[in-house]
Amino acid sequence: MTTTNQTIYWTLTDEAPSLATCSLLPIVRAFTSKAEIDVKISDISLAGRVLSAFPEKLSEEQRVEDGLKFLGELTQDPNANIIKLPNISASIPQLKACIAELQTQGYDVPDYPEDPQTDTDADVQTRYSKILGSAVNPVLREGNSDRRAPGAVKAYAKKFPHSMGKWSKASQTHADYMRGGDFFSSEQSITMAEAGDVRIEFVDQAGNVEVKKELSLEKGEILDSMRMSCAALREFFEESLQDAKETGVMWSLHVKATMMKVSHPIVFGHAVTVFYKELFEQYGDLFEELGVNPNNGIGSVYDKIATLPTSKREEIEEAIHKCYEHRPKLAMVDSSKGITNLHVPSDVIVDASMPAMIRNGGKMWDANGQTADTKAVMPESTYARIYQEMINYCKTNGAFDPTTIGTVPNVGLMAKKAEEYGSHDKTYETQPGTMRVVAADGTVLMQHEVEKGDIWRACQTKDEPVRDWVKLAVTRARNSDTPAVFWLDYKRAHDAELIKKVETYLQDHDTDGLEIYIKTYNQAIRFSMDRMFRGKDTISVTGNVLRDYLTDLFPIIELGTSAKMLSIVPMLKGGGMYETGAGGSAPKHVQQVEEENHLRWDSLGEFLALAVSLEDLGLKGNKRAAVLAKTLDAATGKLLENNKSPSRKTGELDNRGSHFYLGMYWAQEVANQTEDAELAAEFKQLAEDLTSQESKIVAELAECQGTPAALDGYYHANRETVKKVMRPSASLNSALAK
Amino acid sequence: MTTTNQTIYWTLTDEAPSLATCSLLPIVRAFTSKAEIDVKISDISLAGRVLSAFPEKLSEEQRVEDGLKFLGELTQDPNANIIKLPNISASIPQLKACIAELQTQGYDVPDYPEDPQTDTDADVQTRYSKILGSAVNPVLREGNSDRRAPGAVKAYAKKFPHSMGKWSKASQTHADYMRGGDFFSSEQSITMAEAGDVRIEFVDQAGNVEVKKELSLEKGEILDSMRMSCAALREFFEESLQDAKETGVMWSLHVKATMMKVSHPIVFGHAVTVFYKELFEQYGDLFEELGVNPNNGIGSVYDKIATLPTSKREEIEEAIHKCYEHRPKLAMVDSSKGITNLHVPSDVIVDASMPAMIRNGGKMWDANGQTADTKAVMPESTYARIYQEMINYCKTNGAFDPTTIGTVPNVGLMAKKAEEYGSHDKTYETQPGTMRVVAADGTVLMQHEVEKGDIWRACQTKDEPVRDWVKLAVTRARNSDTPAVFWLDYKRAHDAELIKKVETYLQDHDTDGLEIYIKTYNQAIRFSMDRMFRGKDTISVTGNVLRDYLTDLFPIIELGTSAKMLSIVPMLKGGGMYETGAGGSAPKHVQQVEEENHLRWDSLGEFLALAVSLEDLGLKGNKRAAVLAKTLDAATGKLLENNKSPSRKTGELDNRGSHFYLGMYWAQEVANQTEDAELAAEFKQLAEDLTSQESKIVAELAECQGTPAALDGYYHANRETVKKVMRPSASLNSALAK
Repeated sequence: MTTTNQTIYWTLTDEAPSLATCSLLPIVRAFTSKAEIDVKISDISLAGRVLSAFPEKLSEEQRVEDGLKFLGELTQDPNANIIKLPNISASIPQLKACIAELQTQGYDVPDYPEDPQTDTDADVQTRYSKILGSAVNPVLREGNSDRRAPGAVKAYAKKFPHSMGKWSKASQTHADYMRGGDFFSSEQSITMAEAGDVRIEFVDQAGNVEVKKELSLEKGEILDSMRMSCAALREFFEESLQDAKETGVMWSLHVKATMMKVSHPIVFGHAVTVFYKELFEQYGDLFEELGVNPNNGIGSVYDKIATLPTSKREEIEEAIHKCYEHRPKLAMVDSSKGITNLHVPSDVIVDASMPAMIRNGGKMWDANGQTADTKAVMPESTYARIYQEMINYCKTNGAFDPTTIGTVPNVGLMAKKAEEYGSHDKTYETQPGTMRVVAADGTVLMQHEVEKGDIWRACQTKDEPVRDWVKLAVTRARNSDTPAVFWLDYKRAHDAELIKKVETYLQDHDTDGLEIYIKTYNQAIRFSMDRMFRGKDTISVTGNVLRDYLTDLFPIIELGTSAKMLSIVPMLKGGGMYETGAGGSAPKHVQQVEEENHLRWDSLGEFLALAVSLEDLGLKGNKRAAVLAKTLDAATGKLLENNKSPSRKTGELDNRGSHFYLGMYWAQEVANQTEDAELAAEFKQLAEDLTSQESKIVAELAECQGTPAALDGYYHANRETVKKVMRPSASLNSALAK
Repeated sequence: MTTTNQTIYWTLTDEAPSLATCSLLPIVRAFTSKAEIDVKISDISLAGRVLSAFPEKLSEEQRVEDGLKFLGELTQDPNANIIKLPNISASIPQLKACIAELQTQGYDVPDYPEDPQTDTDADVQTRYSKILGSAVNPVLREGNSDRRAPGAVKAYAKKFPHSMGKWSKASQTHADYMRGGDFFSSEQSITMAEAGDVRIEFVDQAGNVEVKKELSLEKGEILDSMRMSCAALREFFEESLQDAKETGVMWSLHVKATMMKVSHPIVFGHAVTVFYKELFEQYGDLFEELGVNPNNGIGSVYDKIATLPTSKREEIEEAIHKCYEHRPKLAMVDSSKGITNLHVPSDVIVDASMPAMIRNGGKMWDANGQTADTKAVMPESTYARIYQEMINYCKTNGAFDPTTIGTVPNVGLMAKKAEEYGSHDKTYETQPGTMRVVAADGTVLMQHEVEKGDIWRACQTKDEPVRDWVKLAVTRARNSDTPAVFWLDYKRAHDAELIKKVETYLQDHDTDGLEIYIKTYNQAIRFSMDRMFRGKDTISVTGNVLRDYLTDLFPIIELGTSAKMLSIVPMLKGGGMYETGAGGSAPKHVQQVEEENHLRWDSLGEFLALAVSLEDLGLKGNKRAAVLAKTLDAATGKLLENNKSPSRKTGELDNRGSHFYLGMYWAQEVANQTEDAELAAEFKQLAEDLTSQESKIVAELAECQGTPAALDGYYHANRETVKKVMRPSASLNSALAK
């Protein structure tokens, strides 16, 4: 499939970004239409994906196209040009809420079967499993990742630094992780000398062999396997809780249940059943009967006991409260609502929560709305160590100073689902026996003894993405004249395989005069922090998970948010995907709109992504696109310079007002440029209209705020209703309509 | 001067080591006398040095030889063979106590003139200034330093690990140091292209030039200069105290007033006057009148007000106590006696106190005899950072495990007073103006603007020692097949000069197959700890101060004490000095003898030193010395193996008993060896006597314990009295006498 040139696919996603799109797109189209560029919407929202999975259940007009499938195919097109906004990586509770909402709206989509009994149930569960968790990115990310803070954004952060909590040298905050029994300590890794099929097998204690999965591996493909011990995990949680209690620090759990959608909910579940040990001992049978699933958090208990007689419910609630007596304080997600860290697995996402804690002087919120030092628990040690390294650094040197520090951009291995550790399709909660990987000829390639409840998983990394990743790293080091560090730990089996490839492929490039290092994670982050502290930049060249973590960690320290990063996926096939910032705090944004009609979402990421998307069209022959790219960049710089980003405070400039200013600056820039006089003339009117009506439009955009705004849905809001909410300025709408 | 061959000079020093010598030497001589080796005593005790400084004040029989001068000359002799036991590096209060004691004993030595008014006073002060602080080592250390844990000692530590305090991940303990205004941040350094004279000058604000000192520098000699700001130091103390108060951690000061005998008492004094700010504001004039010197600690206040009328004294004492109300808890040196960290400058010695704290899980003692987390204050940042690095490491990974960790031996730059940072003769407390170093032709080589009370100092490092140090490092790396790391910080002016030399002189050696690195202090300690943690050894190749610090730090972690280290000074001229372990806790030892007649001092360091001293005589032609060396090593191994080291508990085996066992094992080894049959025969009787009387002798050595033992003096105890105390076993004495 090839598309015609000159189409930008703009993804319609969820929550705040989808609301923002409704306001921003008409402005964007006013510009792109003059350059013969079509900006097409492609729906990859959670609701859209649910609806497209069950066409047979829906009426003709209810059916929707499978936007994700379409875009997945598009990634193979050299002309692909996709602007990808943040979407929900759904946990089971989120998926269920979405289904329920769609049902209320009259869509006959089936319930999510927790415990499928029939073939139909199983089929439904299979379809839903493709929607759960990090389902979008693996399909679209057909290239490696290039993320950096644009110059204008870094300059803005130096001029208008975000707040940084003070780090006390006496802070008790620390990262806590397993010292054995985890994935890190059991990892094995092989590289395929030739292409070949392998089987993942489980051998039970009686010697019966069950083939769990068959994989066709490419030549040069790396396959890892690893095990987390259930007993070691539960013992770790118990010790960690007791230690927190004794030392008086708050306890918080940091996992990524949405991305690691099979393994991390299990880990989360163990945290819940260890924390509330007596509760689950006392009411285990009843909970099983009620269908309580601790992997969905303590919230699952509250949900399931809601139907019990009041007296029984109160008895259980009392038992819950009794558990708190000998446990440490729990970090809160929402202290005003009493929502703890263990309530739902999707509420705390390690790559957002850890940087937030570090930015906040190592403190999280307790039940009284006070901040406190925290034991930040990340059971798996592989990546947890980098946070401890940064915590130690901040205790020693104080909080990083956004006005002086350097930047740590990232080149991340990501293409073809490389190191897709969340890869649920090769993750198993085991019975006692042996998990092993066997070659076609029966040779056992890797194996682990496993106990009941252990988590075993395998992970693939193809050779082509690695080769492309090394090339991208060298290119970025060269283009930005910045040292590049491969974060690879020779003590880790997978990384040891990767190091061999990196050392080989580096020889394909001219690295003369470049500083390129290979360092362990601890060495790498320390090296980067030492340089950052002295105002120097260092490219982090990392695997997929660290890419995910670091592109939140450093941006949040440097810029206050990862949403302001320029995030490019140069596709292996030649196209480009331009991602906009993370949506970590998006749910709170929607809530504020519903309550006070103020959207604090910052579309800066969209502005930056659109500019590089247009730049690419320019490079591919559309001269007007090049002009639009350049003027958009100038407009974005002006917007930052003049501080026209959304405020968090209702009544002040919000997302819509920021869009207006972008439109006004952009129109002014286009009207004033001389490269394309005809285009300048075409935008004269719009520039004048917006400039002259600035105060009127801003007033209209402020007026609507302060009262609740119904969106008629959360996951599947009514687009017409949303349009009315998001485009309240008649003056702006009519100027654009001209 | 050359000596005849076959003399070992055994230093008579102070406190516990000098008591131990009284018991050990007769045993040693019983062996050496059979190999034609003379073991001669050379008195370098504090009292001895005081007495030898004032011959004109003493009667003929009171006069003593200047042992230090004699040994200093001996270092130039290729046959020099010196066993050097730990001595007192006297603070002013210690010196005064020693003087007072000698006067009581009828020696007419003059008082120490705090504020000399006459020429006579000035002369007396000059003579005493040569005795103060680290006065012995600079004279004797005419070579670089080679320190390591002998195999038997390391094996012992793995088999019988010393206790290690638990490190909590939530520990609040940390190192606190200046981030500017200190020596590190102001250091300048030059290397002399040719030999030449330079002047250290002070230029006052009116432009008047005062020559403070003239120096003749060698070709290739490095000269550093640096300044610590008095204002910055006092501000640092105030902030640090407030921070400790706010965060609820104990406050402790770690300096080395004995070694840095001009600069650190001043630093200590500022700590005292900042901590007790209101006290000194209120009573400043009175204190001046009374001669209170805060550089001698708050103890100086108590001393000087002792003569005031009771009511006035009580008023001042109340004012002292009032200061504590808004200050953090102070770490105690002796909580039972209420002696705080700020009482006397000599009580807390950074190189001993920091490792002790780290070994103790980051805790020090508070006024109630409880342990608590501590802010460990080391104002000068140069070396303080390594402790913070280790503290972070222990918080992250837990306490080091003596049964599994590797070892970090040291090769230290030391010869010809290299980097003698305590070099009092080039340290000045300044008036406002400029301190500068000027070449003979008037060129200003280095200069610092200074304020009133700033501390300015210069420091020399000759080229020859550096060259020898690099050679020693390569030799040690080769002989022990161990990576060697030069701890040199390219960001430090002095080290930058040194790095140039190291890179040059490394080329003089075959380093093929050796791992030799140059790393900053933080990188070096982290690298060494990472290896140590995994059971691997790493040689630290350091400058003089780090040599001093690291040869306490790592031994205390690895072995529980630095006293068990083998410490060799291969002299530049070919002789050898064999130093025995540090005497950090020696004063407590003497106290226990006086109270309960139990000496816990471990002479292991003497055993190890004597073995290498004998080995050297063997290499120089004395075959019997070689046999004695080998058998002594075996005896020492047996002693450790059988756990015959001194106990800390009165009534159990003490220093004397340990000496007996060494003698017994040694005699057995000599009697059983076959290399020298005649020698074996000569020791048959002694071996039998000691073996058959083991229980009797041990009983005699235990019997005397439990009651006070008068020594008739502390600094200058009566040798006859001491002999009676230290040799209480008639059976042992008579066996040796045969």
